[in-house]
Amino acid sequence: MTGEWNAKLRAVEELRGALGERLVLDAALIAPYARDTSRARPEGAPLALVLAESTADVSAALAWAHEHGVPVSVRGAGTGLTGGAMGYDGGLIVSLERMNRILGIDEANRLALVQPGVVTGELDDACRERGLFFPPDPASARLCTVGGNIATNAGGLRCVAHGVTSDSVAALEVVLADGRVLRTGARTRKNVVGYDLTRLFVGSEGTLGVITEATVRLKPVPPGTPRTFRAAFDRLEDAGRAVTAIVGGSAQPEVLELMDALSVEIIESFHPTGLTVPDGAMLVGQTVGADAEAKAERIIAICAAQGATDTGISDSDALLEARRLSNPALNARGLKISCDVGVPVASLAEMFHGVEEIAVRHRKRVSTVAHAGDGNLHCTVEAPDDAAGIAAADLVIDDITRLALSLGGTISGEHGIGSVKRHELPWQLDATALDMQRLIKDALDPRGILTPGRAI
Amino acid sequence: MTGEWNAKLRAVEELRGALGERLVLDAALIAPYARDTSRARPEGAPLALVLAESTADVSAALAWAHEHGVPVSVRGAGTGLTGGAMGYDGGLIVSLERMNRILGIDEANRLALVQPGVVTGELDDACRERGLFFPPDPASARLCTVGGNIATNAGGLRCVAHGVTSDSVAALEVVLADGRVLRTGARTRKNVVGYDLTRLFVGSEGTLGVITEATVRLKPVPPGTPRTFRAAFDRLEDAGRAVTAIVGGSAQPEVLELMDALSVEIIESFHPTGLTVPDGAMLVGQTVGADAEAKAERIIAICAAQGATDTGISDSDALLEARRLSNPALNARGLKISCDVGVPVASLAEMFHGVEEIAVRHRKRVSTVAHAGDGNLHCTVEAPDDAAGIAAADLVIDDITRLALSLGGTISGEHGIGSVKRHELPWQLDATALDMQRLIKDALDPRGILTPGRAI
Ligand SMILES: Cc1cc2nc3c(=O)[nH]c(=O)nc-3n(C[C@H](O)[C@H](O)[C@H](O)COP(=O)(O)OP(=O)(O)OC[C@H]3O[C@@H](n4cnc5c(N)ncnc54)[C@H](O)[C@@H]3O)c2cc1C
Ligand SMILES: Cc1cc2nc3c(=O)[nH]c(=O)nc-3n(C[C@H](O)[C@H](O)[C@H](O)COP(=O)(O)OP(=O)(O)OC[C@H]3O[C@@H](n4cnc5c(N)ncnc54)[C@H](O)[C@@H]3O)c2cc1C
Repeated sequence: MTGEWNAKLRAVEELRGALGERLVLDAALIAPYARDTSRARPEGAPLALVLAESTADVSAALAWAHEHGVPVSVRGAGTGLTGGAMGYDGGLIVSLERMNRILGIDEANRLALVQPGVVTGELDDACRERGLFFPPDPASARLCTVGGNIATNAGGLRCVAHGVTSDSVAALEVVLADGRVLRTGARTRKNVVGYDLTRLFVGSEGTLGVITEATVRLKPVPPGTPRTFRAAFDRLEDAGRAVTAIVGGSAQPEVLELMDALSVEIIESFHPTGLTVPDGAMLVGQTVGADAEAKAERIIAICAAQGATDTGISDSDALLEARRLSNPALNARGLKISCDVGVPVASLAEMFHGVEEIAVRHRKRVSTVAHAGDGNLHCTVEAPDDAAGIAAADLVIDDITRLALSLGGTISGEHGIGSVKRHELPWQLDATALDMQRLIKDALDPRGILTPGRAI
Repeated sequence: MTGEWNAKLRAVEELRGALGERLVLDAALIAPYARDTSRARPEGAPLALVLAESTADVSAALAWAHEHGVPVSVRGAGTGLTGGAMGYDGGLIVSLERMNRILGIDEANRLALVQPGVVTGELDDACRERGLFFPPDPASARLCTVGGNIATNAGGLRCVAHGVTSDSVAALEVVLADGRVLRTGARTRKNVVGYDLTRLFVGSEGTLGVITEATVRLKPVPPGTPRTFRAAFDRLEDAGRAVTAIVGGSAQPEVLELMDALSVEIIESFHPTGLTVPDGAMLVGQTVGADAEAKAERIIAICAAQGATDTGISDSDALLEARRLSNPALNARGLKISCDVGVPVASLAEMFHGVEEIAVRHRKRVSTVAHAGDGNLHCTVEAPDDAAGIAAADLVIDDITRLALSLGGTISGEHGIGSVKRHELPWQLDATALDMQRLIKDALDPRGILTPGRAI
């Protein structure tokens, strides 16, 4: 034992030689980097934290971990909701928080070159100064990092118009498990040269490599003032039908979100904006462009035809800001156990109906907030903070998840799998698909040091 | 030798037992399936051809080839331009031509479920009857297959507005090298469950698996009549600058193509539409939607500001139809050796200028046709049909390709690598990137039977 311990100490000294003060060994300083925003609990005490300042730092850390067989967790801002960035007992944490520079914005080609630790909202701000914007906008945009968004293939509010994060990534620099540096993709719009490694790393949740640089695609800010619209419905299902009709219509929204009655009530009491709590649900969304007003009116007309009782259009963002606060608002009221299922948009009404039935059957309060235009639902279940309460809530989530799958859906639309949803993987993927994931993982990380036991 | 031969015969009999008349052994019937539309030459005599009619047929053929170590080439319609579908000496050819059914069009979710052998243009026709369309539209759309488009991640004329084929693929069924059947993706708009295997197979050029079914995304046909615009320039470079300005502007075209003077002359004599040959180049494009006319006018104004000498807007497709014939037209005039390079759009003028210099330096006629809005150029060099002539033309292509790379570009925008461009791979990918491709290939096809020696 002492021999092993001494060997470990010597190994750590070696890494300190390479990283100096960027290697942190103080447990108290390490602890905040060993957690994310999920309900996963730390799996023990990490050995060390690397506050990487360069690709070379990341490369040195991974080469070292590879040599010594040390598990590595990778961390952006720790806003992840599935436990992907949690530290390992005896593991190394690689934080990208200090690699937070925007290296360049190429306006003519609408590309930005960024380090992974850039905060998503700050990149967007910098782009907007140039008349451009960065399409991905998770509700956590003011906190999370671009690297984290890429690693989780994050969604957000504007996906209905601009797709997910992978649609905005052109090229990556990635440090592989053994410390080698890989460059993927190109700065062109089209590129068919070998396998699409860029897309392989997007959404790989820290299990295949550490993203150390990204070339991301930007879009021009549409002219005019955005319009925010809202429509209240007496029945959740009617709101679902309205969403299907809007998405199938000719006036495409930039944002199309849904909050059920319980969510509106909770969000409104957390952050009052004067919203009237509907009987069933509220749709909130945005239109942009020179014809934003006309589009908002067409969308409102569709809502009215589907039975909306109260509608409105404004040029204030307040409702969307409120929507962005749903996560902390729900948590504060004891609704903590949530999911991230998706269904084909045409099945939304059926899905909402089924969720209501499941809540009744389990006698649980369930709130639903949805990136409705994408068919992506976050249902959150009330759960007392004890094991029995959480287990009971988990059963509700299980039923909701299986319902989504039975409608041709998915167990995760945007948050990824991490450790929290790993048991659900076989519900969606068969043995062959699981085996393929494993084959790729083993090929790229043969010693299994990168975020082991998660995501796949 | 006789023992080996007998074993081979017995093995073939085994396969015939599984496939019956779908296994073709007659060399004369096999020959047309052993070629594509590139300048690659057959590498000997294939052993047999499988005219697959089902996933089970493909699975039986691959399991057999895997067991016996027989190289397999995979064939859609054989319109590929890089030798990817060429037969192997002693190899098996798996043709998807008979798996050509549209299995369903889900209007509400804008998805189609298709077999791989469906001709791209026929899928588009079927969608249009329902007010939808299939975005990918290579110039070969009337001949090529959806499976081939997916396997090459094909581009085309509408990419500037709708992206490449991968942007339109939601889910795949793939037969793996050992005959197992893999399902990837989901019918939802968002799905973050394990690695993105769908994108891994898109563009894999028959080297990782055979696509036997695809769920593809459709879009609604925009209202109104499309407008076709044209603008003639005295200088190729000016046309390049106009493209950059158009792509950066607020009026986004559906199509934005460029033909240099030599191309226009050749296309016009092949298929007369009354085009006046410009001194430098001609831009041809299309706008769609209720404001198609207004957008076309804004684009024409940009062209005029960049020095266009002659411009026009019409509601006839004739110019785009002519553009689609550039490939056969150029070939008929002895311009045969071509490339498919891409550059960031803002570098187009510089690229065009450089191509002209290279042509002068080599004293060769070089025509340029470009999916200009994507920065994707097809430069074609005249070459007498003898080895020396082709070698001289290849040197021109090499220079053009290296120029594109020096501008941050790519060696292939849409045609892929196949066998024809394989020597160029190390110009763009470093040793680590090449190694990653190889690791993935070996993991998924450990015996190396699928399209060996190509694409990566
Ligand atoms: C209030 C709130 C609202 C949210 N809203 C949304 C939403 O609308 N849409 C949405 O999709 N998500 C949302 N999330 C979840 C979360 O913000 C996203 O998953 C985000 O992408 C995580 O970024 P991060 O920088 O915090 O990553 P972390 O939490 O640090 O890490 C997330 C995962 O990515 C990996 N990772 C991080 N950086 C790298 C890197 N550079 N290289 C390799 N792997 C890396 C980690 O190992 C981990 O597996 C929300 C979270 C909160 C708390
Ligand atoms: C006149 C002309 C114009 C063209 N214009 C364009 C254009 O604008 N844009 C563009 O991108 N390309 C263009 N091409 C090239 C070609 O049409 C595309 O590459 C097309 O996608 C090939 O489809 P195919 O069915 O003919 O495939 P094939 O030529 O049969 O095969 C191409 C590759 O895909 C593989 N493959 C085919 N089917 C499958 C399957 N089901 N599963 C796995 N692998 C498979 C093959 O093994 C091969 O590697 C053009 C070609 C011609 C002749």
